[in-house]
Amino acid sequence: MDCRITSGNDEIEMAISPLAPTNVPDMPAISGVRLATAAAGIRYKGRTDVMLAILDKGTAVAGVFTQSKCPSAPVEWCRAKLGSSKAPLARALVVNSGNANAFTGKTGRQATAMTAAIAAKAVGCRAGEVFLASTGVIGEPLDATKFDGVLAALATEATPGEWMNAARAIMTTDTFPKVATATVRLGKARVTINGMAKGAGMIAPDMATMLAFVFTDAPIAAGALQSLLKAGVEDTFNAVTIDGDTSTSDTLLAFATGTALAEGAPKISRASDPRLKAFTKAFNAVLADLAEQVARDGEGARKLVEIIVEGAVSKPSARKIAMSVANSPLVKTAIAGEDANWGRVVMAVGKAGEPADRDRLSISFNGIRVASRGARDPSYDEAEVSAAMKQPKIQIGIALGLGKGRDRVLTCDLTKEYVAINGDYRS
Amino acid sequence: MDCRITSGNDEIEMAISPLAPTNVPDMPAISGVRLATAAAGIRYKGRTDVMLAILDKGTAVAGVFTQSKCPSAPVEWCRAKLGSSKAPLARALVVNSGNANAFTGKTGRQATAMTAAIAAKAVGCRAGEVFLASTGVIGEPLDATKFDGVLAALATEATPGEWMNAARAIMTTDTFPKVATATVRLGKARVTINGMAKGAGMIAPDMATMLAFVFTDAPIAAGALQSLLKAGVEDTFNAVTIDGDTSTSDTLLAFATGTALAEGAPKISRASDPRLKAFTKAFNAVLADLAEQVARDGEGARKLVEIIVEGAVSKPSARKIAMSVANSPLVKTAIAGEDANWGRVVMAVGKAGEPADRDRLSISFNGIRVASRGARDPSYDEAEVSAAMKQPKIQIGIALGLGKGRDRVLTCDLTKEYVAINGDYRS
Repeated sequence: MDCRITSGNDEIEMAISPLAPTNVPDMPAISGVRLATAAAGIRYKGRTDVMLAILDKGTAVAGVFTQSKCPSAPVEWCRAKLGSSKAPLARALVVNSGNANAFTGKTGRQATAMTAAIAAKAVGCRAGEVFLASTGVIGEPLDATKFDGVLAALATEATPGEWMNAARAIMTTDTFPKVATATVRLGKARVTINGMAKGAGMIAPDMATMLAFVFTDAPIAAGALQSLLKAGVEDTFNAVTIDGDTSTSDTLLAFATGTALAEGAPKISRASDPRLKAFTKAFNAVLADLAEQVARDGEGARKLVEIIVEGAVSKPSARKIAMSVANSPLVKTAIAGEDANWGRVVMAVGKAGEPADRDRLSISFNGIRVASRGARDPSYDEAEVSAAMKQPKIQIGIALGLGKGRDRVLTCDLTKEYVAINGDYRS
Repeated sequence: MDCRITSGNDEIEMAISPLAPTNVPDMPAISGVRLATAAAGIRYKGRTDVMLAILDKGTAVAGVFTQSKCPSAPVEWCRAKLGSSKAPLARALVVNSGNANAFTGKTGRQATAMTAAIAAKAVGCRAGEVFLASTGVIGEPLDATKFDGVLAALATEATPGEWMNAARAIMTTDTFPKVATATVRLGKARVTINGMAKGAGMIAPDMATMLAFVFTDAPIAAGALQSLLKAGVEDTFNAVTIDGDTSTSDTLLAFATGTALAEGAPKISRASDPRLKAFTKAFNAVLADLAEQVARDGEGARKLVEIIVEGAVSKPSARKIAMSVANSPLVKTAIAGEDANWGRVVMAVGKAGEPADRDRLSISFNGIRVASRGARDPSYDEAEVSAAMKQPKIQIGIALGLGKGRDRVLTCDLTKEYVAINGDYRS
């Protein structure tokens, strides 16, 4: 499968997404976390492709993963490590780009074991305390011997300030690195939450991998961290879709070093602890920020699209309808064409299979109501709506008038560039 | 919503799909069916846009419709008529293109009633014996007064030989008319089955409507015809997807005039009647032929894609996996790029949510095995597979190795032309 890659993302020049955030935050250090990156030559030339995060002893870890029935070897590795203990701990995270180590059979499992062994030796911990994530081509064996020597060097170099370089090393065909940070009071201490993500830049095949990593110095036990993560992901990463194609490798890991304990932060063992309220809000804000950046860097994206469904019979029903709209090629191409095509929104609501009453349905674009109660809105003004559709962010409001179910999903438009990125790279 | 249409399908020139069938059958007359077409000026200029089929007294009718929760007014009209009797009869079918009469509220219901009344007067039957289908833009009121006079003229002109013209009049942005025919022995008679369909040509918004009509002179009671249709559609029209977007207007109606009774065909009252065996096979072949033509005329299609899933735990499970692959934008763009990207097929199998074991999965393209038992096939030869991907028809074989569930789905590739057709018409 080499040829499709060598003529692929190595050569196609990608301009930075016009939807990239204009302000990139200064990423503060997090006590107990050190980072380093290197060019291990996994696939890309002239760029870093491996990131090592070293975590202080006692770092709690939690994770959520792809629901794919064909998950990658690193996903299976992390799941097994998290499942092996009620209070799993992490000492290292190794992430490589360029090869997903997915659908690689026994070789893939051996590669994860070897990578973890090399990292454990470099860091001075057990292999079971090493967490792994890989992103890149599917089906190509990952040569873990390339990490030999590299990880040992990174372990000596690792410093607390390498956040932007780390975010760059995990990119595949993302057009910008994705980071987010928040600082919040926990007990007597101020704790920090740093996150990074890579998104759905899929120039080369099977680069669908969505990876995200969140770190904090707050002393939160693994069980509580897992609960936080599971709840937080629901309305952030799980509410983003680029093309409805779920990767074999999606991984979101959270690490809590607990070093803020020394500064007066209380030890948290339950996610429902009332002292965690502000932290939870900040944690979710970091997840939401990263998830939005993933949507803003969707392949070929020119518009960020926010779909808000109200008045559904329940929140899950609202989610299903919002996702049906977000994944509709006809809705997405209409937005690319700056067309307030509410007929296609009706179609996508109708096909979702959820309770909907045509004669109560209202639809708006960027706050302008275009359809109400089953027909075109009497106040409909094509010129006004057309002007609104030229904005880089389009909000589609859908009011069902049936109940109190509400949900929000982020996506992007479907452009010719998406097809070019995913279909033309061989030409 | 006018502007998007006037600068839309009226002006974009569409070349005939390279996947169009090379042989168009001669469509024989069917005793008891007369057809006529006209240009009623619904939306298009310089082409026919209304078709009237007049059916002899005693014609049995059956239908299947969109599962959309926001169906069009004609879909609701037909459902009501079919539901009003255990043995529904039809005397006329009126189909217009250019306006779907969907999401038009009370006005839409009035338009269907008026159209049926005009047709009933023209044909000399009850309005309840008139069946209706509309395809075109959503949300625009349909001016049924345009049928006044037109349908009366058509009723006098109607002749048995107008099949190709009828198939042309129901097109929206299809690039070729779609017809199919079969003749088969039923008892002592030879009976004929004629069908026509329009597909997923969606240059202008909301032209997603799939319409198909099948006619026979066989004396089959409405209940038996309904059973035949419901069973036949499962592996034909329901096994085709262009973009996963379900129309508000999908309609498939079957009419049996029963005139072959006079020539010795037996009266059939149950679909399970053993004398119907050959007929059922021919009927399903007509449906399958039309459904394949719909896939061949998918918007921007350059490749016909057949997905065959074997070894699933059940047929419904195989269908779900096949549909997940067929609707994956990453699989579809890869095929447009003539790339045997089996990693994306793995991804689409994995995301389907159905039982699948990565380590038993095998994948082939046009009969060439590329992946087996969870990894790249040892015999994989990039040059051989690349050559196969240049064919206009691509068969993706997926063997799960779990059970005996098998299914087949047809789709097409996703090209830049699809995005242009659906996103660029305003520019």
